[in-house]
Amino acid sequence: MNTVGHLINGEIITEGTRSQNVFNPATGDATKQVDLASKATVEQAIAAAQAAYPAWRNTPAIKRARIMFKFKELLEKHADQICQMIGEEHGKIGHDAAGELQRGIENVEYACGAPELLKGEHSKNVGPSIDSWSEFQPLGVVAGITPFNFPAMVPLWMYPMALVCGNCFILKPSERDPSSTLFIAQLLREAGLPDGVMNVVNGDKEAVDTLLHDKRIQAVSFVGSTPIAEYIYSTATANGKRCQALGGAKNHAIVMPDADMDNAVNQLLGAAFGSSGERCMALSVAVAVGDVAADALIAKMTAAMKKLKVGAHSDNSNDFGPVITRQHQEKVVGYINSAEEQGARVVVDGRNPEVQGYANGFFVGGTLIDNVTPEMVSYQEEIFGPVLQVVRVETMQQAMDLIDGHEYGNGTCIFTRDGEAARYFSDNIQVGMVGINVPLPVPVAYHSFGGWKRSLFGDLHAYGPDAVRFYTKRKTVTQRWPSAGVREGAEFSMPTMK
Amino acid sequence: MNTVGHLINGEIITEGTRSQNVFNPATGDATKQVDLASKATVEQAIAAAQAAYPAWRNTPAIKRARIMFKFKELLEKHADQICQMIGEEHGKIGHDAAGELQRGIENVEYACGAPELLKGEHSKNVGPSIDSWSEFQPLGVVAGITPFNFPAMVPLWMYPMALVCGNCFILKPSERDPSSTLFIAQLLREAGLPDGVMNVVNGDKEAVDTLLHDKRIQAVSFVGSTPIAEYIYSTATANGKRCQALGGAKNHAIVMPDADMDNAVNQLLGAAFGSSGERCMALSVAVAVGDVAADALIAKMTAAMKKLKVGAHSDNSNDFGPVITRQHQEKVVGYINSAEEQGARVVVDGRNPEVQGYANGFFVGGTLIDNVTPEMVSYQEEIFGPVLQVVRVETMQQAMDLIDGHEYGNGTCIFTRDGEAARYFSDNIQVGMVGINVPLPVPVAYHSFGGWKRSLFGDLHAYGPDAVRFYTKRKTVTQRWPSAGVREGAEFSMPTMK
Amino acid sequence: MNTVGHLINGEIITEGTRSQNVFNPATGDATKQVDLASKATVEQAIAAAQAAYPAWRNTPAIKRARIMFKFKELLEKHADQICQMIGEEHGKIGHDAAGELQRGIENVEYACGAPELLKGEHSKNVGPSIDSWSEFQPLGVVAGITPFNFPAMVPLWMYPMALVCGNCFILKPSERDPSSTLFIAQLLREAGLPDGVMNVVNGDKEAVDTLLHDKRIQAVSFVGSTPIAEYIYSTATANGKRCQALGGAKNHAIVMPDADMDNAVNQLLGAAFGSSGERCMALSVAVAVGDVAADALIAKMTAAMKKLKVGAHSDNSNDFGPVITRQHQEKVVGYINSAEEQGARVVVDGRNPEVQGYANGFFVGGTLIDNVTPEMVSYQEEIFGPVLQVVRVETMQQAMDLIDGHEYGNGTCIFTRDGEAARYFSDNIQVGMVGINVPLPVPVAYHSFGGWKRSLFGDLHAYGPDAVRFYTKRKTVTQRWPSAGVREGAEFSMPTMK
Amino acid sequence: MNTVGHLINGEIITEGTRSQNVFNPATGDATKQVDLASKATVEQAIAAAQAAYPAWRNTPAIKRARIMFKFKELLEKHADQICQMIGEEHGKIGHDAAGELQRGIENVEYACGAPELLKGEHSKNVGPSIDSWSEFQPLGVVAGITPFNFPAMVPLWMYPMALVCGNCFILKPSERDPSSTLFIAQLLREAGLPDGVMNVVNGDKEAVDTLLHDKRIQAVSFVGSTPIAEYIYSTATANGKRCQALGGAKNHAIVMPDADMDNAVNQLLGAAFGSSGERCMALSVAVAVGDVAADALIAKMTAAMKKLKVGAHSDNSNDFGPVITRQHQEKVVGYINSAEEQGARVVVDGRNPEVQGYANGFFVGGTLIDNVTPEMVSYQEEIFGPVLQVVRVETMQQAMDLIDGHEYGNGTCIFTRDGEAARYFSDNIQVGMVGINVPLPVPVAYHSFGGWKRSLFGDLHAYGPDAVRFYTKRKTVTQRWPSAGVREGAEFSMPTMK
Repeated sequence: MNTVGHLINGEIITEGTRSQNVFNPATGDATKQVDLASKATVEQAIAAAQAAYPAWRNTPAIKRARIMFKFKELLEKHADQICQMIGEEHGKIGHDAAGELQRGIENVEYACGAPELLKGEHSKNVGPSIDSWSEFQPLGVVAGITPFNFPAMVPLWMYPMALVCGNCFILKPSERDPSSTLFIAQLLREAGLPDGVMNVVNGDKEAVDTLLHDKRIQAVSFVGSTPIAEYIYSTATANGKRCQALGGAKNHAIVMPDADMDNAVNQLLGAAFGSSGERCMALSVAVAVGDVAADALIAKMTAAMKKLKVGAHSDNSNDFGPVITRQHQEKVVGYINSAEEQGARVVVDGRNPEVQGYANGFFVGGTLIDNVTPEMVSYQEEIFGPVLQVVRVETMQQAMDLIDGHEYGNGTCIFTRDGEAARYFSDNIQVGMVGINVPLPVPVAYHSFGGWKRSLFGDLHAYGPDAVRFYTKRKTVTQRWPSAGVREGAEFSMPTMK
Repeated sequence: MNTVGHLINGEIITEGTRSQNVFNPATGDATKQVDLASKATVEQAIAAAQAAYPAWRNTPAIKRARIMFKFKELLEKHADQICQMIGEEHGKIGHDAAGELQRGIENVEYACGAPELLKGEHSKNVGPSIDSWSEFQPLGVVAGITPFNFPAMVPLWMYPMALVCGNCFILKPSERDPSSTLFIAQLLREAGLPDGVMNVVNGDKEAVDTLLHDKRIQAVSFVGSTPIAEYIYSTATANGKRCQALGGAKNHAIVMPDADMDNAVNQLLGAAFGSSGERCMALSVAVAVGDVAADALIAKMTAAMKKLKVGAHSDNSNDFGPVITRQHQEKVVGYINSAEEQGARVVVDGRNPEVQGYANGFFVGGTLIDNVTPEMVSYQEEIFGPVLQVVRVETMQQAMDLIDGHEYGNGTCIFTRDGEAARYFSDNIQVGMVGINVPLPVPVAYHSFGGWKRSLFGDLHAYGPDAVRFYTKRKTVTQRWPSAGVREGAEFSMPTMK
Repeated sequence: MNTVGHLINGEIITEGTRSQNVFNPATGDATKQVDLASKATVEQAIAAAQAAYPAWRNTPAIKRARIMFKFKELLEKHADQICQMIGEEHGKIGHDAAGELQRGIENVEYACGAPELLKGEHSKNVGPSIDSWSEFQPLGVVAGITPFNFPAMVPLWMYPMALVCGNCFILKPSERDPSSTLFIAQLLREAGLPDGVMNVVNGDKEAVDTLLHDKRIQAVSFVGSTPIAEYIYSTATANGKRCQALGGAKNHAIVMPDADMDNAVNQLLGAAFGSSGERCMALSVAVAVGDVAADALIAKMTAAMKKLKVGAHSDNSNDFGPVITRQHQEKVVGYINSAEEQGARVVVDGRNPEVQGYANGFFVGGTLIDNVTPEMVSYQEEIFGPVLQVVRVETMQQAMDLIDGHEYGNGTCIFTRDGEAARYFSDNIQVGMVGINVPLPVPVAYHSFGGWKRSLFGDLHAYGPDAVRFYTKRKTVTQRWPSAGVREGAEFSMPTMK
Repeated sequence: MNTVGHLINGEIITEGTRSQNVFNPATGDATKQVDLASKATVEQAIAAAQAAYPAWRNTPAIKRARIMFKFKELLEKHADQICQMIGEEHGKIGHDAAGELQRGIENVEYACGAPELLKGEHSKNVGPSIDSWSEFQPLGVVAGITPFNFPAMVPLWMYPMALVCGNCFILKPSERDPSSTLFIAQLLREAGLPDGVMNVVNGDKEAVDTLLHDKRIQAVSFVGSTPIAEYIYSTATANGKRCQALGGAKNHAIVMPDADMDNAVNQLLGAAFGSSGERCMALSVAVAVGDVAADALIAKMTAAMKKLKVGAHSDNSNDFGPVITRQHQEKVVGYINSAEEQGARVVVDGRNPEVQGYANGFFVGGTLIDNVTPEMVSYQEEIFGPVLQVVRVETMQQAMDLIDGHEYGNGTCIFTRDGEAARYFSDNIQVGMVGINVPLPVPVAYHSFGGWKRSLFGDLHAYGPDAVRFYTKRKTVTQRWPSAGVREGAEFSMPTMK
C-alpha cells in the first residue's frame, strides 16, 4: 500500500513512524496510508519556509503573480487526474470534484491580480512637504489547516493569496483524503515556485499543535468544525499569532409563499444533497412560511428526490456519493433516527440506500424530514449529511427569528420574488453570507467567504479582498526631506558632510 | 472633593461604593475622586447600549456622520476648557494638550467621511444575471479601554469611527485623569447623539473584566502596556470577541553621518521629552552610526537641553510637565540609576529637577544618557519618562539589527538625506510606523496607527481605514431573480400565486 | 435698483457697462440688475485665480478640507437668508429651496473628505528595489458655468470639490437669479479661503467665451441645455481643456401593473411638479404598462392633483411656484397646446392658473396629459414645466424601447415590486441614473451625477468620486535609489562627490 | 508579394482596391503590401462589432477575463514569431521586440483582473431603507488608432482592457508594420473570443475619419504625434465620443552633481538610443547641472557610445536598428545638421553609420550633441531618432524651468541621490510621468500611462486603472422597495394584484 508523505523544501518526505489508513468511501476499503508528521518534521518544514522567506519576500509581486498564472494552467491541464484522486479518497462524483477544483482555480485567478491588490495608499502633503504612505508587507511563515470535505478547494482559498503576498506557507491538510492536496501543491514547483516557499505536512493533533505553538508561525487559517475552530483560534491568538478560524454551519432557506416553487425545489436539491451534504454551505434546513408553501415544497421535493442517484465517484451520472467514513455514516443515520424519535416525520428516507456493487460503501441516501422543530437535536447540530429538514412557520419574521436564534451564522437564503422581502431579509439577518434565490451563496473568489456568530472566529474573512489584509501587515511610512543644499546648489562647489 | 462618575444612557451616575483619588501631578495633591464601577454598573451601561443599538444601526450613515460634524464644532469651541482639564489631571502643558486634542479632532474629521468609508463592493454578473455585493455592517455594542497618557486623543481614536459605523460604545478610560474624557463624551449629546449610544464607565480591573466576559460586547479596542494588552487580547479572543490591543514601545532613531544634525537634534528634543516621554511613540533611543555622528549628537543635544523648561501645565512656556504619579516618578529615576550602574554615562541628569513652587510635584527633568548598550535594563524596558538614551554603533546594519532585536516594534525613524538609505531602512525594518527624518511618525488620521511584534496584538490597526474594518463585519449578498412573469407580461391578465 | 456684481480676488466689483434685469417671477417685476462682465473683467478674475494658485496648491489637503468644514457651518447658519434669496429670484417655495441648499451642503460634506479622496496608489517593488506611485495633482484654474434652476446646488456640485483638490475657481452662474450664488461664494472668505482662490463673474456669452478660449483655464464644468452643452464641450475640448457638459433630459417612469399605485402616484406628484418641473431630473413622462395600470394612474393622479397648490415662494404651504420667465411660461403653455393639437388628452389643465394676488406672475399650474405618443413635439422635447405626460404601452419591453429611443438618457425610474423586473430594467436601460421605486434618482453626494447619450458630454460625471478625477490630473512617479555608499558606510570616512 | 488584410468578424478580408508598400527598414526593400480599407470596409467592421456586442456585454466579466488568461499563454507561446515579424517591418532588434511584447503582455495580465477592477460602489441606507450603487457598464463599440513604433505593445495597451470591460473593438494600427499586430489579434480567436468582438482594419485617413464620424463608435484611443492627436481629439469629441489622444514628447533628464554618474550614463544609453529613439518615452535631452557634471557626463557618454552597435533586427547583439523609413532617416539627419548649424557641438556623430551588408538600410548611428540651447529647432521639436542632446544649466531650478517651458510634458527624470531634490522635482515638475533615477519612467501595467500639457488630450490616461474608467460608463442605481405586504404576511391568504 502506498504511503502519502510530506512536501518539505521541494522534496517528498516520509517519516515512517506513525501512519493512518486512507479509505475509498465507496468500497469501504483502505487503499493507502498517510504518514503522520512528528513535531520534528513539522519544524523541519517551518525551517525550510523560514529559509526561503527573505528571497521570496523581495521578489516583486508581479513575479510572484506570474507563478500563479502558470499554476492555473497546470491545474487545468491536470484537472481530470486531480478529480480522480478526490473521488477515490473523498467519494464525491466527478462533476462535483470538477466544480470544487474550478472554485479553487478561481482563487488562483484572483491571486494573479496581486500587484493591484497590494497597492498601498499614498498621501501627498500630510503636512507641509511631508508625505505618508502605507505598505502591505508579508507576515513571514504562515500556516493553513484544512478539512476533508474540499481537499482541493479550501487549501486553494489560502495559499495562493498567502504566497503572492510574499509569505511562505505550511499546509496541514486533512489526513482523510490527502492525495489530491499533495499533488496540487507539487505542481507549484513546475509553475516556478522556489523550493521551501510552499510546504505540506500531513498529520494529526501533534502537527497542529506544533504549528500553533511555534513562534515562527505568524498566522493560522483554519476551516473545520466549530469546537476545533474555537480551540485553534484561542490557542493561536494566545500565542501572539493572527488567526481566522472557520467553523460549522446550519444553513437555512426561507421559502416564501410567493417563491417560484419549481425553481426553489430545483435549487434546494443540489444545495441540500450535493456532495452528500458535506459542505459548510450545505442548505440543511428549509423554513417554509405558511402551510400552503410547506405542503407544496414537501410534495414537489418528494417527487424530485425520486430521481436522485447515489453511487461511486466514477459514474458521472450519480448525483452524490458516500460520506467520508463509516463513523460519519452512523452519525448521520443517528441524527435521522433522533429526529424521528423526537416527533419529526421522515418523508423520504435515505437510511438504507441500496447502491449496486458497493455494499460496503459509506452511503446515506437523500433524506427529507418534515415537521422539524427547534428543540430537536437534529436541528441544533450540524448533520453534515444528505438530509434536508423542513421547519414550518407562520410568518417570515418567525423564520428570521429561528435563523438568528441558531448558534451558527454561515449562510442563508430566501426564495421570493418580492424586492422588499429580499431587502429586509438580507439587511437584518445575522448571517455572513446571504442568498436571494441563491441557495449556496458562496461568494465568488473576488469577494470574501465568512460566516458570523460561531461560524467564524476572527476579524477577516477567507479569500478575496479580506485575505489580502489577513496575509499582510500594514506599515505606514511618513517622510520629510530637510533641505540638504543639493537642490539649491549651495553645496555644489564644495560638498562636505555636515 | 468632587467625584467623577459614569455616563450611562445620557446620564451621569455615581455609585459611591468604591472610588480612588485623582491627583494634580504638578502639586502632588489629590484634587478629585473617581468612582469605580462595579460589575452591575458596567452591565447597566451595556444594557443601555444594547437598547440603543437597533435604532442607531438603522440610522443612515450620513446622519451618523453629521453628528460628528457637530461634535467637531463643539470640541473646537470647548478646546480651552478641555486642555485645562487635561493639564490639571495629567500634567501636560497647554500647548501639548492642545496638540493632543487636535489629533483627536482629526479622527472626528475622518469619521465625518463615513458614507464614503462604508461603501461595499458591487459586482454585476458574477454569473449569468447573478449579482453580488458586500456590506459592512456594525458589530453591535463594542468597548474601548484607554490609557492615562492621552485622555482626549486615544478615546477619540476609537469611538467616533465605531459610532459612525453604527455601533454603540462603552468606554473605560484611565482612572488617573478621567475628567476631560468624560466631558468630551458628554458633548456628543449636544451634537445630537441619542442617549445610550455612547457610554463611559470609570473603573479598574472589575470593570475591564466585565467588559471582557460579557457576551453582548462584540469587540474590544485597547491601548496600554504590553502585559495588559496581551491579557486583554487573549481574554477577549477566548471569549469570541474581536480585539485589537496596542502595547508598549521602545522607539529608536538612527542618526546617520550624513544627517542634518541641527535638524535631527531639534526634532529629537520634542520627540524624546515632549509630554515627559509618556507617549507610546516617544523617541527614547538614538542610535548614532559612527562616533563622529555620536559625538556631534551628544554635544548638540547637551547644548540644546539647557533650554528645556519643565513645570506646571498652566505656564505655556514650559516644554513639559510632571510624570503621572509619585510611583512612576520613582520608576523613571530607577531606570536612570540602573543605566548608570550598568556603565552608561548620564550626560544630562534630570533626576532632581528644581521646579519653583512645585516642590511636591512628580517631576523628572530631561535626561540624556550616552554609551547605553543592549544588555542594560534601561534599554530593554519601556521607561515612559523624559529620558533619551544613546547607543553607538559602527554601521547602519548594526543599528537596524538592534531595532529588529528588540521586543517592541511600534515606531522608528532614520535621519539621513540619502534616498537609498531611507528606502532600505523603511522597507526592511520590522517596525509598523516608520519615519524618514520624522521622529514621531504617528500616522495622520486618514492612515492607521499600529506597531508590529509585541507592540500590537490583532490583525487591524487603530483608527483610519483599518478602524472601518475593525468596527464592521462583512456581509456578502448574492442575488438572482428568477423570472416571475411580471416583466414578460404573462401574468398581467391573471395574477396567481405559483 | 441694486446691481449684483462680481467676486474677484475677495472683492465685489461692478463694471457698470452692461447689465440685465433680474425678476421676481411671482410678481413679474424687475427687482434688481445684474452686471454683465466684459472679457477684461473675466480675465481679471482668471489672473486673480492664477496668482492665488501656487500657495493654494501647496496647502495640505486637510487644511483645504477644514475650510469646507467651516463653510458647511456657515451655510447652515445662513440657510434661511439663502432660501429667501433663491425664492425671490427663482420663485421656488421655501421648503424646496431648503432642499436644494441641503443637497448642495451634502457636496460640501463630501469635499471635507479630501484627504481620503486624494490618496494615490503606492506600489512597492514594481521591479527590484523600484517603487512607483500615483499622485492626483490639481489642474490649476478651472471654471464652472451653471444654470438658473439650482442657483445654490449646482455651483456647490462643482467648486467645493475643485477647491479641496487644490484648484482655483471661476464661477459663471446664471444671470437670472444671481444673488444667492454670490452670497454663498462670499461665505468662503469667512470660512478661511484665501482671496482669489474662488471668483464669481456674472455675465453672458462674452464671459462664457472668454472662459472657453483662455489658455489659463484648464477645465470647464457645465450644466444647462443640450445645445449649449454641446457647444461648450466641443469648444472647450478643441481648446485643449478637459470638459464635462451636462445637458437636457426627458425622464420616464415605467409604471408596472404590480406597482403600489398609491405610492407611485405620491412619488410622481413631487417628481413631476416639484420646482415647477424645472429640474433636469424632473419626471416628465409616465409610461403605463397596460390600460389597467394606465387608467388607475390617471384616476389617482387626477384626484391627487386637486390638492396641488401653486403660489409665491414665501408661503411654505405652496407646492411649487412660478416658472422662471414670461417667455418660458409661454413656451410651456405652447407645449401643452401642441400636445392637445396633436391628439393627446389634457386631463388636468394648468394653462390658466389663478394665483390670488399674483396676477402678473409667471405661473403654470400642474398639468396631466394622457394618450401622449412619441411623435408629438411635447414628447420629443424637454418642456421644463409642471407637466406630466402619460404614454400607454402594452409591455415593459415597449416601455424600455421608448426610453432607449429618446435622445436623452439622464434619469429614469420603474415602479414595481418585482425583483426580476427591476433588475432587468436597471441593467439594460440606456440611462445613467436609474431609480427603482425612486422617481428622482439623483445620486447622493458620495456617488456621482451623470446622464448618458445626449444628456452628458464627457467621460466623468459630476460631483462624487468622478469629480475627484475630473479636478485632478494623474502623475505617476517611478523611483529607484542606486546605492550611494551611505548605507554601507564606505563613504563615511571620506565623503566626496562622484 | 503578400498583402496584409483586415480582420473582420473573425475572417481575414482583403479589398484589393488601394494598398501601400511595407518595407524592411534594414534593407530598404519593400517586402509586402498592406490593404488600405475603404469607408465601406470600416463600416463592415463596425457592423460586425455592433452585432457581437449584446452577447459579449452580457458575458460575465470573469469569463471575459479567462479569454485573456488564455491569450497570455498564446502570446508567450508565439513570442519568437511575433518578434520576428516586428523586426522585419519595424527594424527593432530581437531583445527590444521581446521587451515590447512583454510590456504588452503585462497589460493582458492586468486585464485578467477585470472582476476586481469592475467593482462598483455599494451604499446601504443612503436614506431610510434606500440603497444606491454604481455599475461600470461597457460603452459599446470602441476604436483604437496606434502608431508604428510599438506595433505589439500599444494596441495591447488598449483592447485587452476594452474587451474585458465588455466592449467590442475596432483597431486601426499603423500601416507601416501591420503584420505582428494582425497576427496577435488573430490569437484572440484561439483564446476563445467570439467573432466580431475584435476587429482590425488597416488603412489611412479614410479609415480614421470613418471611425471618427461613425455614430456607432463610442470612444477613440489614439497614440501618435501631437498634431494628429489634436485632430483626433477635437474631431472625436465634436462627434460626441469620448477620446484620449496621446501625442509627442521631449523627455528631459536632469543630471545633478551628486548623481552616480556611471549609473546615469548607463541608464541614459538605453533610454536615448534604444529602439533608435523612436519611443515617445525616449530620453532625448540631458540637462546637466553645472559644468563639472556636464563635462563628466559628456566624457563618460562618449566613451560608452563607442560600444554601441547598430544593425539588423536578426542579430541580437545589436543595440538598435534602423529608423522606420527613408524619409524619417533624412528628417533625423536634418535635425542633427540644424543643431550643428545653430551652434551646438556634435560630439558623437551618427549621421553616416556603416552597417556592413545593409547599405540601403535606414540607419542613423547614436549621436551625442553638446551645448544645445532652447532656441534650437532640434531642441524644440521631437526628433524621434537616436540623438541625445545635452543642455548645460547652472542650477536645478533652471533645469526645471527648461522642462516646464517646453510644449510637451510626457516623461522626465532626475539623477540624484538626494531625497529632498528628488521630492521637490517630482512634486513640482509639470510632467505626467516622473522618474527618480529611472530614465524611462513608463508606468507598470497596473498604473496608468499619460503625459501632461500637449502630450495628452483627454481626462484619463492610457491603460491601468484609468483605462477601466475610460472604457466604461458609470450607471448609478437608487433603490427603494415599498412594502408589498409579502414580508408582513398580509398577502398570504389571498394574493391579488394591487
